[in-house]
Amino acid sequence: MVRVEEAEKQILQQCRDFGTEFIPLAECSGRVLAAPLVADRDLPPYNRATMDGIAISSAAFSKGIRHFHIRGTQPAGTEPLTLLQENDCIEIMTGAAVTSVADAVIPYEEIILENGIASVNTPVVIAGQNIHFKGKDCQQNDRLVKAGELVSPAVIATAASVGKVELPVKRLPRVVIVSTGDELVEINAVPEAYQVRRSNNYMLQAVLQSCGIDAAKEHLPDNPVVIKAKLQQLLVSFDVLLLCGGVSKGKFDFIPAVLKELGVTEIFHGVRQRPGKPFWFGTHAQGALLFAFPGNPVSVFLCVHRYFLPWLHASLSLPDRKQWAKLEEDVTFKLPLQYFMQVKCRMNEEGQLLAAPEEGNGSGDFANLLNADAFMELPADKDFFRKGESFRIWPFRGL
Amino acid sequence: MVRVEEAEKQILQQCRDFGTEFIPLAECSGRVLAAPLVADRDLPPYNRATMDGIAISSAAFSKGIRHFHIRGTQPAGTEPLTLLQENDCIEIMTGAAVTSVADAVIPYEEIILENGIASVNTPVVIAGQNIHFKGKDCQQNDRLVKAGELVSPAVIATAASVGKVELPVKRLPRVVIVSTGDELVEINAVPEAYQVRRSNNYMLQAVLQSCGIDAAKEHLPDNPVVIKAKLQQLLVSFDVLLLCGGVSKGKFDFIPAVLKELGVTEIFHGVRQRPGKPFWFGTHAQGALLFAFPGNPVSVFLCVHRYFLPWLHASLSLPDRKQWAKLEEDVTFKLPLQYFMQVKCRMNEEGQLLAAPEEGNGSGDFANLLNADAFMELPADKDFFRKGESFRIWPFRGL
Repeated sequence: MVRVEEAEKQILQQCRDFGTEFIPLAECSGRVLAAPLVADRDLPPYNRATMDGIAISSAAFSKGIRHFHIRGTQPAGTEPLTLLQENDCIEIMTGAAVTSVADAVIPYEEIILENGIASVNTPVVIAGQNIHFKGKDCQQNDRLVKAGELVSPAVIATAASVGKVELPVKRLPRVVIVSTGDELVEINAVPEAYQVRRSNNYMLQAVLQSCGIDAAKEHLPDNPVVIKAKLQQLLVSFDVLLLCGGVSKGKFDFIPAVLKELGVTEIFHGVRQRPGKPFWFGTHAQGALLFAFPGNPVSVFLCVHRYFLPWLHASLSLPDRKQWAKLEEDVTFKLPLQYFMQVKCRMNEEGQLLAAPEEGNGSGDFANLLNADAFMELPADKDFFRKGESFRIWPFRGL
Repeated sequence: MVRVEEAEKQILQQCRDFGTEFIPLAECSGRVLAAPLVADRDLPPYNRATMDGIAISSAAFSKGIRHFHIRGTQPAGTEPLTLLQENDCIEIMTGAAVTSVADAVIPYEEIILENGIASVNTPVVIAGQNIHFKGKDCQQNDRLVKAGELVSPAVIATAASVGKVELPVKRLPRVVIVSTGDELVEINAVPEAYQVRRSNNYMLQAVLQSCGIDAAKEHLPDNPVVIKAKLQQLLVSFDVLLLCGGVSKGKFDFIPAVLKELGVTEIFHGVRQRPGKPFWFGTHAQGALLFAFPGNPVSVFLCVHRYFLPWLHASLSLPDRKQWAKLEEDVTFKLPLQYFMQVKCRMNEEGQLLAAPEEGNGSGDFANLLNADAFMELPADKDFFRKGESFRIWPFRGL
């Protein structure tokens, strides 16, 4: 049995790079960029008017000229009109390219237009005003977004602006969820009095979906021959196997023994934590990783958030954005285990995250997860946790 | 021109209910439940062993019996074996149904098994220990999840456990994104020196995707005849039109006039804010809502997060989970406008969210959004914002 920190360390040593794939821009949201985004030209690409009004030479204004002859009207998206004389102006629209001869845009609010003449009624015109100059944001070939960034809507906008119809993104692991347990029937079945419907596999599928992973699902009976044959196939077809159930000390907990027979290396079996103590982790010679969770739904939920997702993020080299919250009540936990307490979080108007225990009846059933937002990780070397102390949290619902 | 609070109020008065649809469970994640989830039977549905070991009658133990005859071995998922005599026990596995004659499970760690006899080596056995009793979590017909909850992985697990192959969820609005502007070319085009590629529509599409909305996209030229004909169609085919561009004071900003001709009621035009001052909002008699954002990418980004998403959440009756952060630097903003400042957020180990200004060069271009996580809403009636003060934030990237 290992400590939580040791389990985490061992798992993070097994990070993998699954390569790169190109996918259409509209499908890239939430993926991880595999190559930097580079500016294909200066940004802005031209001196751009940022107001509607007239473009003039500020030098003319400085000389005392206040009435400008309107040479033409220039909407956005057309070739820039130019000034021929110093008392010329261009009526220009936001987004249009300003001729290099002009260096100031005076907004409509500060002029009067009459008979082809724009009369300026503001006392000050500053060179450069209301023009967003070519290359001010960045230069051609500048790196706009570095590899390894999550593709957010802002990254999508950037990619579109530099002409990317598709993006190289980090490939995601192929994951299969394998539930075991003869007491579990399909969700459309009417269970016998001593059976329950499967739910862990659907829950895990939903968690993985939120990371963009479309996981496969398998259910295996408590039969070591069947388990062995199926796992043998899955080990070479998937990068990650998430197993639920069959890892405790029961007579029908065949998973650790079968994995051993299949040549899977056990990295650890058992973590000093509640829930999820029987958690088993190992690697296969051909590369597959095996996260074998106990069957208890709360254990599965904790283990996938505390171990699998951090492994996934690290494998994709996403930054680890830790979160903490302040306890709203005293808590006692006497066992020498790292206790992952279910909490309900709220943020006060100071931006302080607060966590109230939502321990439920401790049954280990998922009904209680419905009221909670996060697991709070309470250190194993203490048994009393005071109101106002802060501890790390593992959110499982948007905070 | 209205204040931000007034704009928000007017928009939230236009919340809509788009009805209900049934979709397969595996596609429900992130949707909003339209009807409560009810327990189809007690939870747990039987007295369930929570440890591997032996099931006995605690009364027998109290009488001094320490050696129990193993009547049989009962894996999970089988009909419960029963005790015939008081010194009988069942070797039982986690998840199995405990016969009503037994009321305690003693784990393997506390017994010795030899020649069909289990000898108990613990001094204490408590009635009910290691059994999760039928109906402890909830009773048949109890409401497990109320209507209006976001379908999280825990809700998915609950739905599976009560046999839901599909769920009734709130229907999402049909949304079309309409960009305008003759300076904008498609992303696969090579723009002229005075043109730029479209990006707002891709960005908006990505934001909506994260809410489960698959939005349509249209681009219209700066031509009032074409705009009018197209909008006329869209107004009766979609619930929401998100327009970008064409709402300022320029000669080619045809949107407000065309909408008026089409019988769209203007609710407001202009909000005392930066960015996004020209924001226009209106309603069509047949029900469509029109959010007409200015074309500036940062304005679009602010407006969709500050106005459209809260409207969407309210329409789906999701709770409004507000967030605040503490300023890490003094900030001055002199204009009499509500300033939405771009900030970079971090959480310290106390669970306190902190926000550092990421104002960039103020160009209004999206390059700066790449470095920021959120907009911080700085009140219009102040011009100095001190380090350590807290203000509401509108996150646009996972915090």
